[in-house]
Amino acid sequence: MMKKIILRCEDSTNKRDNKLGVYFQGWLLHQLPNEVATALHESIIKPYTISVKQKNGMAEFIVTVLKDDLIQEVDNVLLSDGLNAIYLTSSKQKEFMIKERVVKVLTEKDLSQTFYQVDAVKKYGLEFYTSTSFKVDGEYHFFPDLRLIYQSLMRKYNVIFENNNHVDQDLLNELVAKTKIVSYRVQSTYYPIHKSFIPGFTGTIKVSCFGNQTLANYLNMLLRFGSYAGVGIKTSMGMGAIEYQEIKKGDRHG
Amino acid sequence: MMKKIILRCEDSTNKRDNKLGVYFQGWLLHQLPNEVATALHESIIKPYTISVKQKNGMAEFIVTVLKDDLIQEVDNVLLSDGLNAIYLTSSKQKEFMIKERVVKVLTEKDLSQTFYQVDAVKKYGLEFYTSTSFKVDGEYHFFPDLRLIYQSLMRKYNVIFENNNHVDQDLLNELVAKTKIVSYRVQSTYYPIHKSFIPGFTGTIKVSCFGNQTLANYLNMLLRFGSYAGVGIKTSMGMGAIEYQEIKKGDRHG
Repeated sequence: MMKKIILRCEDSTNKRDNKLGVYFQGWLLHQLPNEVATALHESIIKPYTISVKQKNGMAEFIVTVLKDDLIQEVDNVLLSDGLNAIYLTSSKQKEFMIKERVVKVLTEKDLSQTFYQVDAVKKYGLEFYTSTSFKVDGEYHFFPDLRLIYQSLMRKYNVIFENNNHVDQDLLNELVAKTKIVSYRVQSTYYPIHKSFIPGFTGTIKVSCFGNQTLANYLNMLLRFGSYAGVGIKTSMGMGAIEYQEIKKGDRHG
Repeated sequence: MMKKIILRCEDSTNKRDNKLGVYFQGWLLHQLPNEVATALHESIIKPYTISVKQKNGMAEFIVTVLKDDLIQEVDNVLLSDGLNAIYLTSSKQKEFMIKERVVKVLTEKDLSQTFYQVDAVKKYGLEFYTSTSFKVDGEYHFFPDLRLIYQSLMRKYNVIFENNNHVDQDLLNELVAKTKIVSYRVQSTYYPIHKSFIPGFTGTIKVSCFGNQTLANYLNMLLRFGSYAGVGIKTSMGMGAIEYQEIKKGDRHG
């Protein structure tokens, strides 16, 4: 099972503060039992993601947990009745009062059903709402690139559900060959992690799939998974958070 | 010699109208003597570009002429005292009163001096202010890509000044290897030409050159040339107009 917990807080910072993600990760790890935090620190593919979304005077602190054994630990912290606020001592605004909690769940069964449905749409909107980046041969790649996006999602999927990080290259090639970015609006960003700045991008792309229904279903499943798992690097430190949206025929801008 | 003529007109359309470029081309060709218009129609690499820039209630109709023999013909039309307005019968606003004309000139000598200067900066801002696109193996490519940008400019340069469209692949590879997009903000567009829509992009990129001074000078020259010649496809129909700006050390956002 995968779980997404959104803590909606009042935000008086009045501007986007990219550092909130890193500070929030620090705060969360500090709340968890030592042995859990240590295990998370040491795991190469993190079984959770963090992101912060600021809009309309609210800051949403979003945690997704991708593994069952971690869900209870995170629930104990974030869903505890005793938790009224998040305290980020290093950020400009120190205290974020929690006004609302939203909980969503995505099960493996939901994902299978996505795959076996007969009418998946073939056009998607993807919003990269936090800074997203890929690492290729040691270099950062900070443009949206379908191959890198799919490869990242396929690898994460296999790590979470199959305990290996193998990527089926034939399937990846097929996806790349049969899908296309049809429109986009993106910009580069520099995401601050400790003392360095990682080049990334934010923005939206629209993707069209002109493969058969099975491929469209697979893509749908992958993107749905991605809205929990994130895409690219440093998803546990606030980067690579995506939202996806099916675009049905007749939708405006569809 | 290359010449740029900007006709600044009042614009009451209140929104960006991508069709103005194509209409303006039609109008201009109609004003030129028949044999000149026919020769332009038939030339594969057009020795002129057209672009329209709308901002702050003004529309700028911009023509660059890249070949000496065409300059006089275009001057006769656009710099004639009798010309008070541009009439675009197919557009929403039919009549554009000319409030101001701006003329700029770039000579081969200016370009050589750019090349032989000793202190070219190594960072540039490039604005693609009209829809820009490339054609690669019959497919449109509508992301900013340094190789495609340089290749287009080198080819245009050789067509204009050397009468061949050869591109020095070693030099191109060197430029691509020694320069990098360091930040960007771009979005896709669909540029209307007659009944089709060509996928392109607009926006800005910043490019850094970490090659030696000679390479930096060459890049500087190429971009300066590009601000007259345009980049990519359909530059005679309103696409691919760029402006470049040297970014000196210490500049804000530099």
